[in-house]
Amino acid sequence: MSLARVQFFSISLDGFGTGEGLSHKAPFGHAGGRLHQWQFATQWWRKNAGQPGGSNGIDNAFVQLHDRGIGAEIMGAGKYGFPGWHEDPEWKGWWGPNPPFHTPVFVLTHHTRPSIEMEGGTTFHFIDASPAEALEKARKAADGKDVRIGGGVTIIRDFLAARLVDHLHVVVVPILLGRGVRLWDGLEGLEKDYQTEATSSPSGVTHVTFSRLST
Amino acid sequence: MSLARVQFFSISLDGFGTGEGLSHKAPFGHAGGRLHQWQFATQWWRKNAGQPGGSNGIDNAFVQLHDRGIGAEIMGAGKYGFPGWHEDPEWKGWWGPNPPFHTPVFVLTHHTRPSIEMEGGTTFHFIDASPAEALEKARKAADGKDVRIGGGVTIIRDFLAARLVDHLHVVVVPILLGRGVRLWDGLEGLEKDYQTEATSSPSGVTHVTFSRLST
Repeated sequence: MSLARVQFFSISLDGFGTGEGLSHKAPFGHAGGRLHQWQFATQWWRKNAGQPGGSNGIDNAFVQLHDRGIGAEIMGAGKYGFPGWHEDPEWKGWWGPNPPFHTPVFVLTHHTRPSIEMEGGTTFHFIDASPAEALEKARKAADGKDVRIGGGVTIIRDFLAARLVDHLHVVVVPILLGRGVRLWDGLEGLEKDYQTEATSSPSGVTHVTFSRLST
Repeated sequence: MSLARVQFFSISLDGFGTGEGLSHKAPFGHAGGRLHQWQFATQWWRKNAGQPGGSNGIDNAFVQLHDRGIGAEIMGAGKYGFPGWHEDPEWKGWWGPNPPFHTPVFVLTHHTRPSIEMEGGTTFHFIDASPAEALEKARKAADGKDVRIGGGVTIIRDFLAARLVDHLHVVVVPILLGRGVRLWDGLEGLEKDYQTEATSSPSGVTHVTFSRLST
């Protein structure tokens, strides 16, 4: 069965998945890189960036699940680009010529455009669809594999609210951002459909997983 | 040095320290007992309630710090009683004749009344004061020992905002309350003054401690 999975989505202790003041130069606004330092410090991440060393414990175990068994990603317009990217016909995402997805990627946007084929197996498709419609499309493209719900915050919240997520992995970073976009709004009682598990890492973050109870 | 400490204050994963709809019959509103089940399951808690058994790991270690080295408590009107308790001249708190404090307790309220001496060493004093003034008073009463900032949510937030808390221990419970009173509002960047540590428990909760960096 093809699952819809959220892999290592970082939030602050006060629940923000990104900061305030997003722009081309500040993809996470005033949060800067603070939500993702734990991830940049892992061996897997550093290896992908051509750097030696890195942590090789629980954080590194979790980040490696990013690609495992994934056949497609769904992301929001806010992950694909800065506010206003749709006015730039040359914008092809943040990730350079060879993005780290290596699968079809469905970008949810009201400003659709023709698909863009990148190096390394990533193709960006731009669709204006509901979460359920997008998931159906992505599942077909994933050919039996799982679909990653890649973010940003509002997309993950929308998919959770629509009860479409089978596996949610959030990483709680012990900082208080104070402002930005909250992940948990409007999700009262979400945990009732899931088995949850929390595991703290020596890096300071806590991995919290929600796995849907079979019904 | 006499520290101001918050001991095992439970919040939901979405940051609520209590629910909505507080009343005499529902001290935590729609949250019910869900924020505190981990604590009711500890050996220390059960022993105090005259019950056998209970967990004896990390949760039990942390709850036992409640009294250790404490010479006084400060609590808000919302912890002392249900909304409107000040109109009941007989109200003496939720805890029966022998409350579990065993020290002077300073209740912050705009509706002051004469002090009430209870069994077991607890005396309730009712004061209308700022956090700093209350802490000064409680420190004198604590006679060199630490002062517990006992809650509810808004009192802890006020003391944190006034930068008066030396040690904060919050317990993140993996439920989404969705509504109620948030602990973290207005505390952006709080972590910069503290060393933080997160430790997950097999019970499912995560203990997060903030210890003030010496300056």
